[in-house]
Amino acid sequence: MSSAGVIDDRRYVLSLGCPDRTGIVAKISTFLAEVGGWIVEAAYHADPDTGWFFTRQAVRASSVGIGIDELRAKFQTVADEIGADTEWTLTDSGERKRVVILVSKEAHCLHDLLGRAAGGELPAEISAVIGNHKSLEPVAKAHGITFHHVDFPKDPSERGPAFDEVKTLVDSYDPHAVVLARFMQVLPQDLCERWAGRALNIHHSFLPSFVGARPYHQAFARGVKLIGATCHYVTAELDAGPIVEQDVIRVDHSDETTDMVRQGRDIEKLVLSRGLRWHLEDRVLVHGRKTVVFS
Amino acid sequence: MSSAGVIDDRRYVLSLGCPDRTGIVAKISTFLAEVGGWIVEAAYHADPDTGWFFTRQAVRASSVGIGIDELRAKFQTVADEIGADTEWTLTDSGERKRVVILVSKEAHCLHDLLGRAAGGELPAEISAVIGNHKSLEPVAKAHGITFHHVDFPKDPSERGPAFDEVKTLVDSYDPHAVVLARFMQVLPQDLCERWAGRALNIHHSFLPSFVGARPYHQAFARGVKLIGATCHYVTAELDAGPIVEQDVIRVDHSDETTDMVRQGRDIEKLVLSRGLRWHLEDRVLVHGRKTVVFS
Amino acid sequence: MSSAGVIDDRRYVLSLGCPDRTGIVAKISTFLAEVGGWIVEAAYHADPDTGWFFTRQAVRASSVGIGIDELRAKFQTVADEIGADTEWTLTDSGERKRVVILVSKEAHCLHDLLGRAAGGELPAEISAVIGNHKSLEPVAKAHGITFHHVDFPKDPSERGPAFDEVKTLVDSYDPHAVVLARFMQVLPQDLCERWAGRALNIHHSFLPSFVGARPYHQAFARGVKLIGATCHYVTAELDAGPIVEQDVIRVDHSDETTDMVRQGRDIEKLVLSRGLRWHLEDRVLVHGRKTVVFS
Amino acid sequence: MSSAGVIDDRRYVLSLGCPDRTGIVAKISTFLAEVGGWIVEAAYHADPDTGWFFTRQAVRASSVGIGIDELRAKFQTVADEIGADTEWTLTDSGERKRVVILVSKEAHCLHDLLGRAAGGELPAEISAVIGNHKSLEPVAKAHGITFHHVDFPKDPSERGPAFDEVKTLVDSYDPHAVVLARFMQVLPQDLCERWAGRALNIHHSFLPSFVGARPYHQAFARGVKLIGATCHYVTAELDAGPIVEQDVIRVDHSDETTDMVRQGRDIEKLVLSRGLRWHLEDRVLVHGRKTVVFS
Repeated sequence: MSSAGVIDDRRYVLSLGCPDRTGIVAKISTFLAEVGGWIVEAAYHADPDTGWFFTRQAVRASSVGIGIDELRAKFQTVADEIGADTEWTLTDSGERKRVVILVSKEAHCLHDLLGRAAGGELPAEISAVIGNHKSLEPVAKAHGITFHHVDFPKDPSERGPAFDEVKTLVDSYDPHAVVLARFMQVLPQDLCERWAGRALNIHHSFLPSFVGARPYHQAFARGVKLIGATCHYVTAELDAGPIVEQDVIRVDHSDETTDMVRQGRDIEKLVLSRGLRWHLEDRVLVHGRKTVVFS
Repeated sequence: MSSAGVIDDRRYVLSLGCPDRTGIVAKISTFLAEVGGWIVEAAYHADPDTGWFFTRQAVRASSVGIGIDELRAKFQTVADEIGADTEWTLTDSGERKRVVILVSKEAHCLHDLLGRAAGGELPAEISAVIGNHKSLEPVAKAHGITFHHVDFPKDPSERGPAFDEVKTLVDSYDPHAVVLARFMQVLPQDLCERWAGRALNIHHSFLPSFVGARPYHQAFARGVKLIGATCHYVTAELDAGPIVEQDVIRVDHSDETTDMVRQGRDIEKLVLSRGLRWHLEDRVLVHGRKTVVFS
Repeated sequence: MSSAGVIDDRRYVLSLGCPDRTGIVAKISTFLAEVGGWIVEAAYHADPDTGWFFTRQAVRASSVGIGIDELRAKFQTVADEIGADTEWTLTDSGERKRVVILVSKEAHCLHDLLGRAAGGELPAEISAVIGNHKSLEPVAKAHGITFHHVDFPKDPSERGPAFDEVKTLVDSYDPHAVVLARFMQVLPQDLCERWAGRALNIHHSFLPSFVGARPYHQAFARGVKLIGATCHYVTAELDAGPIVEQDVIRVDHSDETTDMVRQGRDIEKLVLSRGLRWHLEDRVLVHGRKTVVFS
Repeated sequence: MSSAGVIDDRRYVLSLGCPDRTGIVAKISTFLAEVGGWIVEAAYHADPDTGWFFTRQAVRASSVGIGIDELRAKFQTVADEIGADTEWTLTDSGERKRVVILVSKEAHCLHDLLGRAAGGELPAEISAVIGNHKSLEPVAKAHGITFHHVDFPKDPSERGPAFDEVKTLVDSYDPHAVVLARFMQVLPQDLCERWAGRALNIHHSFLPSFVGARPYHQAFARGVKLIGATCHYVTAELDAGPIVEQDVIRVDHSDETTDMVRQGRDIEKLVLSRGLRWHLEDRVLVHGRKTVVFS
């Protein structure tokens, strides 16, 4: 996969999904050729199961004579021709995206994401970190990132106001991604819907195995020989949203739960950071319960 | 992991599990030293969860002055000292083991196992292949292996006599391993118990995900990014026996179920052949629902 | 990756490489749309290093009103427009391809390829097996495949006539792929050139490490923690041709050379079969010393 | 692998290598039993190639009535009996080890190691960071770690005094490990010898491929399909020391050198942190050019 790492590598990125039929690629590529677009990446997928077609195309912004807004307006005509069900976005990699990270006490994913953002690996700025504990405030501050603490009452039935506060905080940043980086609270349905397609969670198991709490303990009890992690979009059904990325690592009988926790962290970090980068680069197209990932 | 591949590399192999306490290793190693045993492999595991201790030790047969039966008789005294709960076996790698393979129509695991046996990769002879279809008879015959066809009626409630026939056939070979190489029949409880610790199944998913029928279809529907296979001992509860080995392979949105079936075959072959070899080399110690694998 | 496994899934496959410039995709996709081509797979790569553009597109044969020869004739005009340097092929997945396999004594890759061909995993027929030893003749015959034995003299300087015989035999089948499946002879330069882009070798190391003879012994001596295998096109420089596929497996201090040989076989089989399948499905585009693989 | 993560899990760890002969295990385990040692981990390796035997045994410190110094004194007698060539260490996991990290400008390995140390994943304290550039000083300081800047002249022939300063600084901490975390200077021979068995380097290729400078550029030029990283002990011969750990990640034609650099970082971090942890837990026994790793 290619990344748009350098500033003069500014790109316009089209992501599109629609019911499949003949001629879609020709329409899109003819349009891109007409505006002078020099294609640097192009990927297609025709899904025989759903009958849908998906594409992602990146052109050099400098090769196109017009700005992103004008390009969007022009492409609307093409999209209309393709059909009313067409879902598409056209983004400018030169417009920095914003990410808000939700955390509890576990530090490793936050450390990892902030380190990657600082190292230029993520095409986004981290707008804020929101924690239901204060323990990770110093980590955020060491990176110069705003930290908001929202107190969550012990009784789950009394957490509504806390979630409202989180909602207000998150929305104040209008983020392109809301990352649940080992945030140990289940989002209420209204927030799942509000942030649909933008909220990414890291679950510390190879889903659909070991849904819910303490997956490493479940894995230890079952005696599996590999443990994993899953990055998925958050939906109202717990740990059942569209999967973006998964990976595993080998364990054996000598690994106790604490060893699995330690080894699993490495996989969680890899899987979450990959999933988030792909999301931010508009490489992930959600369709129903599944994703197309043009990595 | 080391394999005892050559004939003059004959070994006596002790596998032992018992409640853990101080001095067990000293007792065993002193015994082995007293009989002159040159240790070529030794592995230990103390399980803090169950409080059990496990070991596997292989000595050069030529370094020990006595035969395997006499060695077993002598070791009984040591085992008694260690404690009444001690479970142990002492085997002679020079005694060829026997394997019976159960199949349906899927050829790849059978092909793979017969090829490995022919190539000297499995420390066993394949005594027979038993199929509930006739389609794999030529494969077995091409390798000079006896094939038995047992007809299974369509109605599951009428399959008792067929299973009885399978039981009689299998038991006539007194095998060290009964391998369900994509045998598409669920073993009845009495056979699970009869062959407990000897019957190995390959399930074409990364358990505990996708138990039961058509796991690749389940995987496709869920949109997972890795598919896997699991080699486990057969128990009365479907796909829930102690896991011996698992592995996975990456898939993506472009892989349809038929692609997963094809790619999954490679993982099934690897996982089953590894699990079977470890079982035959007495590297797998079962304790409760889990295994210790001294690979 | 998708495979064209079933007969009614007949496809026309265009593979093309050319110096990159704006509008190529539009030209190709407009052409495909005009002939009614329903695109089932499409992949692109713009190489900033060489300034070349590569694409592979598969359309349903049934969606195109004309035959492959007429389609080729029509596309020639498009190719001419794109530029004189354009390299392209247009193939019909309904035309069965032919493979000739060269072997010595090692059986595992031959077993594996014949098994996959029999199981419908390879979109080709195995036309013949040619061996410089007779030991694998029974394997070929068991699959009903012609086996030719060509005697190779011990003195490398006297092997010219033997290679001439191999050349004559291979060419008599006009194969789409010549597979060196652990063929322990170095092809002379004239054969490398004659079969350029068609001759695939499996080397039992993770190239460029351990070029030449006995790579597992070299790996053991160096103490590496992973061993691998490489499928590459054969060129005049030993083990230096364009790499199609590589993979590795973990080893540790307890693995002796014989263990590495055994474990390495599994990787060799996987890597060679993947590379060959991609080659046969026109997924591999060679450019200079490197490959673009639209897997 | 098990880790001694919690304070009341204090262990005494014996690591030993010697020419192999009958009875060594019995001698050691009898000794451990006599001092009341409750074995929590035990691993053995008999190397047929060199004729050496290696073992690592960990006992609960609380099960042994005496301190580590007295235990060492007692074990000396056993070691003498085993033979004059015996190499052994007996360490107390309760004695915190010290690590000094050498860096240049690349931040990711330093970030990773400091994060792991802070998270309790490394059984050691980071005593200091030494850089030949000042750019990573803030990273060290954010973790409260001393940073020393040593200026290196551009002319390699004039770097002697700089290396002398590094030597004095490193030795002032008497560290158990000197980690070259992407330190872009080749250690002079006297430092290699001075820190033999303690200096760990991370090389950003799968050695022995791509020794020396700019390995990702070499990998890109060769067109490999996997890139890797290697953690090894530093010796006078560049990138040729005993390998502790290696791993790889898949790349394809679409990955440019900058992509490989980014993806390779993840592997470098994993490989270096694993290798360092094993070294600090006395799991790595060096023999000649190779290592035994009781992970």
